[in-house]
Amino acid sequence: MTGRDGDADLRPIGNSPVIVLVGPQLADNIGAVARAMANGGLFHLRLVAPRDGWPQPKAWRNASGAGRILDAATTHDTVADAIADLHRVLATCPRPRHVIKPVLTARGAAAELRAICARDLRTGVLFGPERAGLDNDDLAAADTLIRYPLNPAFMSLNLAQAVMVLAYEWWTAADETLPRTLMTNETRIATKGELENFLSHLIAELDACGFLRNLPKRPGMVRNIRHFFERGEVTEQELRTLHGVVTELARGRRSLGRDETTTDERKAQGGS
Amino acid sequence: MTGRDGDADLRPIGNSPVIVLVGPQLADNIGAVARAMANGGLFHLRLVAPRDGWPQPKAWRNASGAGRILDAATTHDTVADAIADLHRVLATCPRPRHVIKPVLTARGAAAELRAICARDLRTGVLFGPERAGLDNDDLAAADTLIRYPLNPAFMSLNLAQAVMVLAYEWWTAADETLPRTLMTNETRIATKGELENFLSHLIAELDACGFLRNLPKRPGMVRNIRHFFERGEVTEQELRTLHGVVTELARGRRSLGRDETTTDERKAQGGS
Repeated sequence: MTGRDGDADLRPIGNSPVIVLVGPQLADNIGAVARAMANGGLFHLRLVAPRDGWPQPKAWRNASGAGRILDAATTHDTVADAIADLHRVLATCPRPRHVIKPVLTARGAAAELRAICARDLRTGVLFGPERAGLDNDDLAAADTLIRYPLNPAFMSLNLAQAVMVLAYEWWTAADETLPRTLMTNETRIATKGELENFLSHLIAELDACGFLRNLPKRPGMVRNIRHFFERGEVTEQELRTLHGVVTELARGRRSLGRDETTTDERKAQGGS
Repeated sequence: MTGRDGDADLRPIGNSPVIVLVGPQLADNIGAVARAMANGGLFHLRLVAPRDGWPQPKAWRNASGAGRILDAATTHDTVADAIADLHRVLATCPRPRHVIKPVLTARGAAAELRAICARDLRTGVLFGPERAGLDNDDLAAADTLIRYPLNPAFMSLNLAQAVMVLAYEWWTAADETLPRTLMTNETRIATKGELENFLSHLIAELDACGFLRNLPKRPGMVRNIRHFFERGEVTEQELRTLHGVVTELARGRRSLGRDETTTDERKAQGGS
């Protein structure tokens, strides 16, 4: 209704949890929540008695392109109404007291939500108002609590940050990105043979220029050079660049505009 | 310098990464970054050429008690100056192009940062300006990139949200909270013997009131009841409550002010 043309074409991705904001106070935060949900592939948003009414244009402005989530959001007078059609409801609760309830970490919650959603059950997660958090009756309506492991000296989490962590964990729970890769773009990782080819080139030039002229020390110096170049994953493109670097350095310093250096210049630099 | 009395008594926790904001635009965001850092147990903040100068009171207002981090933050003219004393520098980069660089997930980065910090090396993580992200020279200054796994249809992450995810992963990488526990507070999980004791009480009362009078069906009905109560972890306190519920229900409906029900009333209710 207040959607804009610049909004991303967001839609539900599979069966994903409903985010239920209970008594949210600031429209800015509701917008930031929508953005965080979009980041993590969530779509369904329900608002229980937003303090300043609904809709509010500020929310759309602060959603930075995630307006479709706000367009589809529904409002409810009570938590009971907002969760009536759900099968499982989790509630975020930083410091639960006097409740007897299973407690999940954010990561544990994401794994369970993925498992429950895979069974075609409808799930939701309750987030309380910015200042007070959920009250005891709201907590009682949930079957499980979520408590993020965070610095106990500073547990106060902004509402959108709280949704961000859960949305991020939700996405990550189904993500198979390797924890470490090498981005090589157009090139590829060099083979040990290609690396050896470069090292032979380098060592031949270092022999020619006199850098390795101390024969008793030569094996150790060659190993030191080798240690450095063997350490990580070199790409084929980087090896070509390094071949060029060695070739050009070995030709010696040239004035711009001249094609060739003298033999004397080459000797002077190679030996330094 | 603009610190307030309400600020949390934050200080560095061990050897933790420096957060380097490169060209941050909004003081609000710098404050929100400090808050997110505090949530995840980070402390060291460096600002490279903040657009609107520094310090700015708005940042302290938006830090919600994490002002000590802003008090201790330093400003720098260049990335090179901000990272000169660090041994390893990672850079966040949602869509790296034309770079040959190791790429970590946020979780992979947190694990590596923990491992590097444990070796007493100083680490830092670069975050780019709100709109543009880091430029190619800044990326080249980093030894490793971090790319969060997020919804590819909506990768645009608010600056403070980006710091939140990393700070959360940093904290979580050293956290040993079990993914699922049962919060029992003053009570404890009941033993199977205690549960059996309650079930015997319940079944005896159900026999007495006639609920189980259909003898051929009785074993199946008892098992159904048993299935429900055996499903999860019941606490000792909950069993005491349930004992009371059964005892009181079995006594039958009473008018307020009268102590006893008649035998007829009891029979009528028990049999229904």
